[in-house]
Amino acid sequence: MADTNSTPILKDDLDIVIPTIRNLDFLEMWRPFFQPYHLIIVQDGDPSKTIRVPDGFDYELYNRNDINRILGSKASCISFKDSACRCFGYLISKKKYIFTIDDDCFVAKDPSGKEINALEQHIKNILTPSTPFFFNTLYDPYREGADFVRGYPFSLREGVPTAVSHGLWLNIPDYDAPTQLVKPMERNTRYVDAVLTVPKATLFPMCGMNLAFNRDLIGPAMYFGLMGDGQPIGRYDDMWAGWCMKVICDHLGFGVKTGLPYIWHSKASNPFTNLRKEYKGIFWQEQIVPFFQTVTLPKDCNTVQKCYIELSKLVREKLSSVDEYFIKLADAMLTWIEAWDELNPSEEATELPKFVSK
Amino acid sequence: MADTNSTPILKDDLDIVIPTIRNLDFLEMWRPFFQPYHLIIVQDGDPSKTIRVPDGFDYELYNRNDINRILGSKASCISFKDSACRCFGYLISKKKYIFTIDDDCFVAKDPSGKEINALEQHIKNILTPSTPFFFNTLYDPYREGADFVRGYPFSLREGVPTAVSHGLWLNIPDYDAPTQLVKPMERNTRYVDAVLTVPKATLFPMCGMNLAFNRDLIGPAMYFGLMGDGQPIGRYDDMWAGWCMKVICDHLGFGVKTGLPYIWHSKASNPFTNLRKEYKGIFWQEQIVPFFQTVTLPKDCNTVQKCYIELSKLVREKLSSVDEYFIKLADAMLTWIEAWDELNPSEEATELPKFVSK
Repeated sequence: MADTNSTPILKDDLDIVIPTIRNLDFLEMWRPFFQPYHLIIVQDGDPSKTIRVPDGFDYELYNRNDINRILGSKASCISFKDSACRCFGYLISKKKYIFTIDDDCFVAKDPSGKEINALEQHIKNILTPSTPFFFNTLYDPYREGADFVRGYPFSLREGVPTAVSHGLWLNIPDYDAPTQLVKPMERNTRYVDAVLTVPKATLFPMCGMNLAFNRDLIGPAMYFGLMGDGQPIGRYDDMWAGWCMKVICDHLGFGVKTGLPYIWHSKASNPFTNLRKEYKGIFWQEQIVPFFQTVTLPKDCNTVQKCYIELSKLVREKLSSVDEYFIKLADAMLTWIEAWDELNPSEEATELPKFVSK
Repeated sequence: MADTNSTPILKDDLDIVIPTIRNLDFLEMWRPFFQPYHLIIVQDGDPSKTIRVPDGFDYELYNRNDINRILGSKASCISFKDSACRCFGYLISKKKYIFTIDDDCFVAKDPSGKEINALEQHIKNILTPSTPFFFNTLYDPYREGADFVRGYPFSLREGVPTAVSHGLWLNIPDYDAPTQLVKPMERNTRYVDAVLTVPKATLFPMCGMNLAFNRDLIGPAMYFGLMGDGQPIGRYDDMWAGWCMKVICDHLGFGVKTGLPYIWHSKASNPFTNLRKEYKGIFWQEQIVPFFQTVTLPKDCNTVQKCYIELSKLVREKLSSVDEYFIKLADAMLTWIEAWDELNPSEEATELPKFVSK
């Protein structure tokens, strides 16, 4: 179980990745929780602009010039003018865990009025196992005051390693443009005090706003795709990563949790702009989701890299008929893995036979 | 959406089924919520005993003599000295919806201190669709203040008919005997304000304590098996029904929800007695669960009855090696369907091709 005393948990094992185009004043509110940790700031847009980071934070900042310099020709796989660029931070990190958060997300309060330490909850989620093979009706059985209920097979109670912790949002819900347009005033006020494992073979819409993961376990699958400048689509970066990540976790026997912690999402993005970015995705997801629902990876794919390379082949094969964009995306997926292996050479040959599903 | 005004919802379309061996004083607390509805009381144990029902309730009561008289030789499929006998109430009902509750369950309070109308919440769950094909991270999208999040395929937003609503318990959690023994003082104090669809192909431990279902849609699958007197096992009646029901719902394209409403579970049953009843189930479920996880029903099974008959064949074929009890259970499953069709003749030939999964 996660340590809850005053020493920051995983202080030396976790990087906080923040994609941004503006001054990071939002960090002031997070200071009590984030200051002990190292930040990786990925500056999107004009690299000549100076991003101000409040004093006292330990950070490294990469702009587009840095990304081009470090990755060379492989920089083509990192999106520009889209928060998808955040995955460069995952690539460059050397830590075991990543927490990523958007710069319009603030500290939320629980129903008792207490400020929520989102990072601490993510760490608890990540450090306790997941239960993807059978649903526990009292939710995460590893939380204090909970357990497995009657009828839960004992052989499954050890759980599996947790790869991803997906947190939620109070105030502005993460709606698509059509729903934003139809329900402009809807706010999420429901605090659901639950963490649960997304069951095996079930896909979900992963939002990148408030997300943690075990980089050692699943890092190479957390590629946020080609979005934004020069691409026909935006706002599907995290969805893409979520679908790819989930089928690979299912294959390798890792777990994905969703639920707590909440952050306070302060500002709805412009629904008209969003519609322009999203509309192709809204069509395409009708074919992308069935693709991911039926994809199967061969048994010899026993590392995340091997799984991801196989997935890129399948994307090229099965989704290129949807749009030629998917050929470009499949290429970028391979470039991403090459970049990952170049920047993380020791992991290249790591096999995880223990967790491979039978 | 469910009606929330003062007229009791589905008053003429819902029966409340209560299995009991004692006077039903617990109904006093439920009076404001249950009094408008019809009760079916299934008296377990000694039929010569008189069960007292508080004044003012509209009810019919069946004891073992009634069950034997009504079902004749088919009464063998109804368990004795086990709450599994409740399914006789499902058989004899003529209503579209069933709510079943244990007589040690009281009205719970929500975090604001308001008494929870469990039945009303079940009805809301049942009258709104389910979303078994893709997980919505803000839980039930049909609840007020919620919707489908970004990345949820629009083609799946209509949902599917909800067959079952599984409610939870505050205070005494529904633990198995080993967990009761290890954690005798654990109480469930966490009010999770969520309803969610158990995804397709995911099994869960269905508890019969606080449960509602659409009898027209799934009734014949809600057989609680052979438990109690003369049987080698107890306390797996609801689990058995849950596994059978879930694979049939998955096959026919119906949804199953879990979460709200909570009831207050007042009293832990004796863990030593429970262990005696459960211990074979604890072994057996290690093989039963994989059986249900891999079972597939043929396409021509397009009614619940046909699915259930097919399932009984598979139980005989695949589980008889676990214990000869499963041969007896498979026979009882067939007897149950015969009894169902006898008491519900008009439904026998009802086909549901619209919902059959492809």
